[in-house]
Amino acid sequence: MENYQSPQRDAQFVAYELFDFQTHYDKLGFADVSADLVKAIHTEAAKFADNILAPINQVGDQQGCTWSDGSVTTPKGFKEAYQQYVQGGWPSMSHPEAFGGQGLPYSLATSIAEYFSGANHAWAMYPGLSQGCISTILTHGSDTQKNRFLPKLIEGQWSGTMCLTEAHCGSDLGLLRCKAQPNEDGSYAISGTKIFISAGEHDFTDNIVHIVLARLPDAPAGTKGISLFIVPKFNVSEDGEVTDRNGVTCGSIEHKMGINGSATCVINFDNATGYLIGAENRGLNCMFTFMNIARIGTGLEGMAASEAALQGALRYAKDRVQFRSPTQRDGSAAADEIIVHPDVRRMLLTQKAFAEGGRALAYHCMQQVDVLQHAKDPQEQQLAESKLALLTPIVKAFLTETAQEATSYGIQIYGGHGYVSEWGMEQLARDTRISTLYEGTTGIQSLDLLGRKVLASNGELLGIFLAEITSFCDKFDGDELQLRWRDTLLGYTQQWQQLTGQVAKQAATNPDELGAASVDYLMYSGYVTFAYYWLRMAQTASQNIAQGSTEKDFYQGKIETARFYFDRLLPRSQAHAAGITAGAASLMSIGEDMFKA
Amino acid sequence: MENYQSPQRDAQFVAYELFDFQTHYDKLGFADVSADLVKAIHTEAAKFADNILAPINQVGDQQGCTWSDGSVTTPKGFKEAYQQYVQGGWPSMSHPEAFGGQGLPYSLATSIAEYFSGANHAWAMYPGLSQGCISTILTHGSDTQKNRFLPKLIEGQWSGTMCLTEAHCGSDLGLLRCKAQPNEDGSYAISGTKIFISAGEHDFTDNIVHIVLARLPDAPAGTKGISLFIVPKFNVSEDGEVTDRNGVTCGSIEHKMGINGSATCVINFDNATGYLIGAENRGLNCMFTFMNIARIGTGLEGMAASEAALQGALRYAKDRVQFRSPTQRDGSAAADEIIVHPDVRRMLLTQKAFAEGGRALAYHCMQQVDVLQHAKDPQEQQLAESKLALLTPIVKAFLTETAQEATSYGIQIYGGHGYVSEWGMEQLARDTRISTLYEGTTGIQSLDLLGRKVLASNGELLGIFLAEITSFCDKFDGDELQLRWRDTLLGYTQQWQQLTGQVAKQAATNPDELGAASVDYLMYSGYVTFAYYWLRMAQTASQNIAQGSTEKDFYQGKIETARFYFDRLLPRSQAHAAGITAGAASLMSIGEDMFKA
Repeated sequence: MENYQSPQRDAQFVAYELFDFQTHYDKLGFADVSADLVKAIHTEAAKFADNILAPINQVGDQQGCTWSDGSVTTPKGFKEAYQQYVQGGWPSMSHPEAFGGQGLPYSLATSIAEYFSGANHAWAMYPGLSQGCISTILTHGSDTQKNRFLPKLIEGQWSGTMCLTEAHCGSDLGLLRCKAQPNEDGSYAISGTKIFISAGEHDFTDNIVHIVLARLPDAPAGTKGISLFIVPKFNVSEDGEVTDRNGVTCGSIEHKMGINGSATCVINFDNATGYLIGAENRGLNCMFTFMNIARIGTGLEGMAASEAALQGALRYAKDRVQFRSPTQRDGSAAADEIIVHPDVRRMLLTQKAFAEGGRALAYHCMQQVDVLQHAKDPQEQQLAESKLALLTPIVKAFLTETAQEATSYGIQIYGGHGYVSEWGMEQLARDTRISTLYEGTTGIQSLDLLGRKVLASNGELLGIFLAEITSFCDKFDGDELQLRWRDTLLGYTQQWQQLTGQVAKQAATNPDELGAASVDYLMYSGYVTFAYYWLRMAQTASQNIAQGSTEKDFYQGKIETARFYFDRLLPRSQAHAAGITAGAASLMSIGEDMFKA
Repeated sequence: MENYQSPQRDAQFVAYELFDFQTHYDKLGFADVSADLVKAIHTEAAKFADNILAPINQVGDQQGCTWSDGSVTTPKGFKEAYQQYVQGGWPSMSHPEAFGGQGLPYSLATSIAEYFSGANHAWAMYPGLSQGCISTILTHGSDTQKNRFLPKLIEGQWSGTMCLTEAHCGSDLGLLRCKAQPNEDGSYAISGTKIFISAGEHDFTDNIVHIVLARLPDAPAGTKGISLFIVPKFNVSEDGEVTDRNGVTCGSIEHKMGINGSATCVINFDNATGYLIGAENRGLNCMFTFMNIARIGTGLEGMAASEAALQGALRYAKDRVQFRSPTQRDGSAAADEIIVHPDVRRMLLTQKAFAEGGRALAYHCMQQVDVLQHAKDPQEQQLAESKLALLTPIVKAFLTETAQEATSYGIQIYGGHGYVSEWGMEQLARDTRISTLYEGTTGIQSLDLLGRKVLASNGELLGIFLAEITSFCDKFDGDELQLRWRDTLLGYTQQWQQLTGQVAKQAATNPDELGAASVDYLMYSGYVTFAYYWLRMAQTASQNIAQGSTEKDFYQGKIETARFYFDRLLPRSQAHAAGITAGAASLMSIGEDMFKA
């Protein structure tokens, strides 16, 4: 977005004041990762986002990608920005030094991805997909595969993709048909067509490394017969150099609602040479290692869009004059800046509560990933993994669902001007609309949360997180207002458990009860989770004010937003609670022919 | 939308079974307007919508309008469709026979506008704007003006616009600057620039008649110094023939999020000859006569989008297979149609509840307009006017706000395919996004409802509508379930009054309390209002089933949707109730510099 400013101050607040990343990094052995280093990296990332990526965001939307005879041309400036990205060393940040990486924490590399996405969602998808490809090879690839593919991927000279979806199978990967036939040399011949492949073809790099789900000839049906393969666009020699073209072509690109600068490709594999990653028929397991972490990245995209919408709307609300305020000005002007009007403030505060609450949740998740990847103590790792398991579907779905509202308010605050392309607000709404769909829809995330995480663990995963909240509340001290919020939050932790018990009971006799409650359950969880972070943020802000901080506006803004959150957003959870307890009957009793005359 | 089918059966249900339009038309003296005639007109309108307008909806979006040297070219097929529309006699339906109209009821002409908008929102705006222009001249024009402009407008040979907005004034018309200088011949020289003028320039008609708000030289500041003028693109002789070009030019058109086939114009008036309508400085009053009725039309657009989204999503949900249902099929298929899944049904039922609940509210409003325009009894007219005053902001804002959710679910049910342009779901969402902005934003409607209607009448207008609901409830009979809904609804009528009293009290000492509560108040009102219509529809459906109707699926679908509505949508009102009672402090206490670091 033009005029986008990477929210460095708030990132610093969340990382260093709320979650004490200094101690966190120290404990994990990142002795060199000082607060100054992090700040310097954030500053450089912000410059790149604000000065290079933001200015090409609108032109990227207008021009989009073009396909011709299998080649994709990206919008003006996209390729050059990618070159600068590579020159800046950004692709390699969190990867192992053995393959040319910088060995920095995951949280550091991922937190700056917010800036890139906020400035230019479509552009940021290219490097984002590469990270997924790299992670998969790092985690599940053989040493030969790592040596062959990782250095150029990590350097950014090549890019990567994740090829899951086929025309007839999206959420339900068990249906996939793409085939892998063993070759005599131990490689495989991959054949089939994948759709919706982001960054599947483009003009950024010398090679594109596809991670592809396919079936071996004798594989069992369903999800237990899917294997994972590395399939490069150009074949690669043992020492990692590009050789001849592989049987991989881009058949077309999609015309979409948004993220027009991101090429969404149909990729045809025609006896393309591929290399098995991990064990045969265990492809989905390998994929989901990556997917779970990638979902934090998608949540981050939603949060970044909420932030960008807030920035744009706030600028307009302080500039546009329309109607007098009865209380906020002296009445001398014919009309006042619209930020004086209560309903405009309601929308701005909603954007702020979602953007900054989302940032807290996302950073908390990133912190758990760091622990999972680097802690020495297996128990600490286990705890981080448990928290992540619960929070991942929430961070993915809740941050992207709330982004729909935040970006819609971006339009609404601009009035009719919000609907006009030049201001950028409508692009934000179109771009972020994808985020509740890809990487698992909100419905899929909700089944994951309620079914696979909460109920399958017999409430244990939920219990761990609720214990964290109640432990915080028990130690909580603050003024009367904040103590009231604390009591409210404690009440919600009890309701959360009670609602969970109720759904568990219903679902025990009728499996449709799970799907009937799931999305409301996820949204309920999101609202209560945000209440926890907003209470923590209010406390941290109060402490800073008490200590005489010179940034009183910043901290007081946190406290006021927490107040708004508890007053006006958290009560929405009760509508979701009603949905959770309503039961499946009012969804399932209507006959399929009764929906329309 | 392609494959759009005008919902004739439901329109008939609402008009003839729910609201007894037969008796209604008879009472107002429309002896010739038989149920058969209405059905025949709806059938012809549906053919035009489904076969002519729907097929050019997508191409209209893709091509958009183009501007060149002051001229606007509409997308392929738009002009030809308009010619067919004129040949079909559609523009003249509800207008007086004295000016070439057909003298049919407003409700008949307006109800078919749903079909046009559902099939092609962008195209439907051109005739929609003409209707606004015609109504204004009919209500406030002199006989000379009527004779000069109306026949060709009513015939459709000319089109019309409404020119309100200027770059610096949207919601706040008091700021407008456009000037009107008296000429010696009694006409005025109009100068200034208007923006966001829908249908301001196009290639459909020989002439365009602009209705323009402007200020006389000695006019008071603010809204009490605005006058209304007729300003044709080509001057018109006394006998209504086009002569020379007037000083009216189209400076450019906007690039927008949607309704790309609708030209949104900058119109420059350069000493253009204009004719005063109504009294000097009373322009806003004249304009609002029309605006109030036009707002029903905008609500209709939202409802039509919800209907179209339901149709598209339902088609896909019955066709797309993905995952097995644990309860709805025999388990023999690898995957089942997604309509078996509870969460898909939740989304479909939400769309259905919004589309059909909205249709009921819209028809109820249209019925009141008929009474207002044609009843002989002044008391009946007064009652209709009172109901309309209250319901107009609700029909406008609630039907367009719910359309945002319904069209978003259209995308969501299609998964990633919903984001791709070819399926049409994302276009619906983009097109309908305008509807919460134009004709008064949701914020403006909410202030109108709470401030100007409910509180300014000391609750009288609300009391009239609540009396209608309680009177219905008192006489209500049904099965145990429906009696429970009746009790729920009665409880809400009490809460509605209690919430109103609370806001009134708060606002008496602090005017910001009005704006702080207003949007939540409107949404609350919308949810409760829909509960009333859903209870009525369930009752009518039950009666038809009891009488042995052969359309059991249709009627049972109504009852099931009512059940869903009471179970899962109506509880959202409680989150809005919390917003209403939260007070202004949590919006107003945050300093303007506290929103961002």
